[in-house]
Amino acid sequence: MMASSIYDRDLDKNRANYRPLTPVSFLERTADVFPDRVAIIHGSLRRTYRDFHARSKKLASALVKHGIGRGDTVAVLLANTPAMLECHYGVPMTGAVLNTLNTRLDAAILAFSLDHGEAKIVIVDREFSKVMKEALSQCTVKPLVIDYDDPEFTGAGDRIGTIEYEVFIHQGNVDYARMAPDDEWDAISLNYTSGTTGNPKGVVYHHRGAYLLAQGNVLTCNMAKHPVYLWTLPMFHCNGWCFPWSISVAAGTHVCLRQVRAKLMYDAIAEHKVTHLCGAPIVMSTLLNAPDDEKKPLPHVVEFFTAAAPPPAAVLGAMKVAGFNVTHLYGLTETYGPAVVNDWQSDWDALEPVAQAAKKSRQGVRYMALEDLDIIDPETMRPVPKDGETMGEAMFAGNVVMKGYLKNKKATDEAFAGGWFHSGDLGVRHADGYIQLKDRSKDIIISGGENISSIEVEDALFKHPSVQAAAVVARPDDKWGETPCAFVELKPGKTATSDELIAWCREHLAGYKIPRMIVFEDLPKTSTGKIQKYVLRDRAKGM
Amino acid sequence: MMASSIYDRDLDKNRANYRPLTPVSFLERTADVFPDRVAIIHGSLRRTYRDFHARSKKLASALVKHGIGRGDTVAVLLANTPAMLECHYGVPMTGAVLNTLNTRLDAAILAFSLDHGEAKIVIVDREFSKVMKEALSQCTVKPLVIDYDDPEFTGAGDRIGTIEYEVFIHQGNVDYARMAPDDEWDAISLNYTSGTTGNPKGVVYHHRGAYLLAQGNVLTCNMAKHPVYLWTLPMFHCNGWCFPWSISVAAGTHVCLRQVRAKLMYDAIAEHKVTHLCGAPIVMSTLLNAPDDEKKPLPHVVEFFTAAAPPPAAVLGAMKVAGFNVTHLYGLTETYGPAVVNDWQSDWDALEPVAQAAKKSRQGVRYMALEDLDIIDPETMRPVPKDGETMGEAMFAGNVVMKGYLKNKKATDEAFAGGWFHSGDLGVRHADGYIQLKDRSKDIIISGGENISSIEVEDALFKHPSVQAAAVVARPDDKWGETPCAFVELKPGKTATSDELIAWCREHLAGYKIPRMIVFEDLPKTSTGKIQKYVLRDRAKGM
Repeated sequence: MMASSIYDRDLDKNRANYRPLTPVSFLERTADVFPDRVAIIHGSLRRTYRDFHARSKKLASALVKHGIGRGDTVAVLLANTPAMLECHYGVPMTGAVLNTLNTRLDAAILAFSLDHGEAKIVIVDREFSKVMKEALSQCTVKPLVIDYDDPEFTGAGDRIGTIEYEVFIHQGNVDYARMAPDDEWDAISLNYTSGTTGNPKGVVYHHRGAYLLAQGNVLTCNMAKHPVYLWTLPMFHCNGWCFPWSISVAAGTHVCLRQVRAKLMYDAIAEHKVTHLCGAPIVMSTLLNAPDDEKKPLPHVVEFFTAAAPPPAAVLGAMKVAGFNVTHLYGLTETYGPAVVNDWQSDWDALEPVAQAAKKSRQGVRYMALEDLDIIDPETMRPVPKDGETMGEAMFAGNVVMKGYLKNKKATDEAFAGGWFHSGDLGVRHADGYIQLKDRSKDIIISGGENISSIEVEDALFKHPSVQAAAVVARPDDKWGETPCAFVELKPGKTATSDELIAWCREHLAGYKIPRMIVFEDLPKTSTGKIQKYVLRDRAKGM
Repeated sequence: MMASSIYDRDLDKNRANYRPLTPVSFLERTADVFPDRVAIIHGSLRRTYRDFHARSKKLASALVKHGIGRGDTVAVLLANTPAMLECHYGVPMTGAVLNTLNTRLDAAILAFSLDHGEAKIVIVDREFSKVMKEALSQCTVKPLVIDYDDPEFTGAGDRIGTIEYEVFIHQGNVDYARMAPDDEWDAISLNYTSGTTGNPKGVVYHHRGAYLLAQGNVLTCNMAKHPVYLWTLPMFHCNGWCFPWSISVAAGTHVCLRQVRAKLMYDAIAEHKVTHLCGAPIVMSTLLNAPDDEKKPLPHVVEFFTAAAPPPAAVLGAMKVAGFNVTHLYGLTETYGPAVVNDWQSDWDALEPVAQAAKKSRQGVRYMALEDLDIIDPETMRPVPKDGETMGEAMFAGNVVMKGYLKNKKATDEAFAGGWFHSGDLGVRHADGYIQLKDRSKDIIISGGENISSIEVEDALFKHPSVQAAAVVARPDDKWGETPCAFVELKPGKTATSDELIAWCREHLAGYKIPRMIVFEDLPKTSTGKIQKYVLRDRAKGM
């Protein structure tokens, strides 16, 4: 304990000089100052900041009337819609925790998440009601189910809940006075990640981290006042990298989008003068490979933030020609989305395109809101030399690292061993301090921006009566970035065709996790019997 | 106490996911990412971020070697120089508190501040060594005195200390590992304000508030990456409104300036392509009224942030023609400098210049980092109606309000009564939520950006044997914004001339506090004998 000083006397916190940080305050301020600005565009809908705030308060009030309070979980299975944005404010206003579910998951995993997170309320878009109905039949919890029947969705899907979202929020009171979080360390959201082990882990964010990363995005992305932000990144991923909160910091406009299709994107960019968008590399491919009649001239240089895989030189070049400025970000669900940025150095302006792309393919340096980032030898816990060659594990420390994994002390303790968050991603550190990943977390495949656990796919294959051993690795793919590629050893005397195993997987896995290619062969192993995945990765690349 | 939830279990703070906020981290990050960027320009000196950080660490290390640690006070009497910037990082790195002294004060007040703050070390620019020597002879504390002999200062002044700054910091170790603040609530700086009562009050800032306001400036001022910031605002005022820390957030360049002279400013703006500067209205007058041969074309639109008094329409118009975009800020020493901004509404673009100026003269709306701002009836503590007419007191609440006044529990408690910081400034709130001051704190005169306590000047006049009563108010002044104007009643049978009283004041007050005009007359009083200052203010305006 330090000795006390004159500055420790009679200078305590009080309501005048201390408030827990919360991103909810961003919406309150912007609704006060710019009430008539358009906050949300969705199809023909234009919603002002006044209404966005009012509806968020009504949602909060209605949740409270239905028994929701501090530390309760409200789960949502929603597309990038106004309701999803309102949930990012209305749920935290009650002290409850927003659990955004991945709309591409299957019923079994959704059921697991609902049970694990102890969801008290579920809000489900009609588009996803079928899988949610199935999940609800499998899970133990019995949440109140609210249907969101988005007028922009005209496809199939029944209402399955007891009340519709619009009716629900109209039960709320617009004068609702929000709960300040008791403590900025209180949980604000829950994001399930498909890790390398069987069951998803529930990553918990807090108000403080969400506040700091939301501001960090504005600072990092050089976002001037009143940006127009196109929702090509799913908001169920790390709370949309915290951009639902960032846009309120900058008093900008959200342009919602249910589907990431080229024509819809070009139309929105041209019509609404979009300034910023984010997405996995597949979003860039979709934009670039669109038929000419779907393309439209951009109103100005559009800032594109990408993560998940380094943007290749050809894509960067084509994006530049198309009028986009691409910035490479990096992070994990455990770091609120991006916490690392490939910050541009002005002397790189003079480099040739290929050299520029090489610079840009590096993951980069920490956000201001992340206090520490390094490549560390996980055995010794010492930083590797900054030589661009020595491999180590990317580790993070600071205020935009999660609280931990929900109800999983063992995984939390492992993740935070030695006072660092261990990402599982392997890489090097260059002389200039920029980090570069060399081998992503061994067992994760990123396809269309979605994380796929190779172990989960292997587990499904193993269950087939003919399979002796299976190893699933990423195979580079122009459209999806990567797809799962399975190497399979059959049991002696047993047979199975590729089609048969793929059909088998379809029964056991969400669609995007199904291997696109199955190779039958003896798996290469180390002397101790470990499968040499790096050999298989090389082989998959060459196919 | 709230019931505990699943989110309260095993999700605690640790070194991987929690760090106390401190603005020192901004310099560390920028020195890592942009080591070769010029951080500081001063005359012919160009100092990179690498060197800025290294020298700040050496300063910290040398301070520690001389016994400085957590909660100790390091006082500085410095111009806007590189040393002053280094002190903003080096002192907090040790856990100590930076006390920036106003270079325009007289020895008696400096001595009071040194004693009250219990300064252990004083760093003094040679320009101010004479007054500091006098102050040191009057005060009780016996700090180590370090001379800063800035090569850019060629005027008179002796070294008075035991060691020169450059020698001192070279005693330090560049590998110094900074003290993280134990707690982000720990004090970072001490700023004495000339309040309305006799002795100055010591306003204490903390690391958290400095971090948040520094980022708040970047967000509020729409500061893109790599700004070039000209130091026309004294850094001893509210730590230069926290801009010594803001510029590190944006990896910008500080252009130091010892004197706010027109030619120096125009030269610096043209040569270094200055993007932003701040200052009281007198800085605008100085720029506008410069002789033509001192003016230079601006390299681009330059952002000018002003506070202390609403910018008049004529000045705004002239500034626009001259190529500056003026933004009006408002705050107090107690709010880390600016915490309120006249945020621009795009529909004001269409207004006539006079109508625009009327909009701009309003103080505005809260910074994002200030959680609450209102005009409140101090009797009932209820907000006034948003009618633009009902007067109340501007009150602040949030994370950029001071810890309190050092060793002054009574003043702290009064300032925070009812959970709001009471500014003492009177104003109204308009229908759009913007606040506008109508009568500044009754007893403060702002002259050339300096606060003058009218009571202090009155006290000096009272001491004269012939003075029966005195009331000092602000008189509008084209150059200084305001100057003190004294109304004096003489004792029956006694005489005194204006010159005699001014000479008397010169003996007892710092130069800028001396009344420019003395009016002899019977003072107007209320029925209960209170002097009607508003009558005198009107009279002074008409002179």
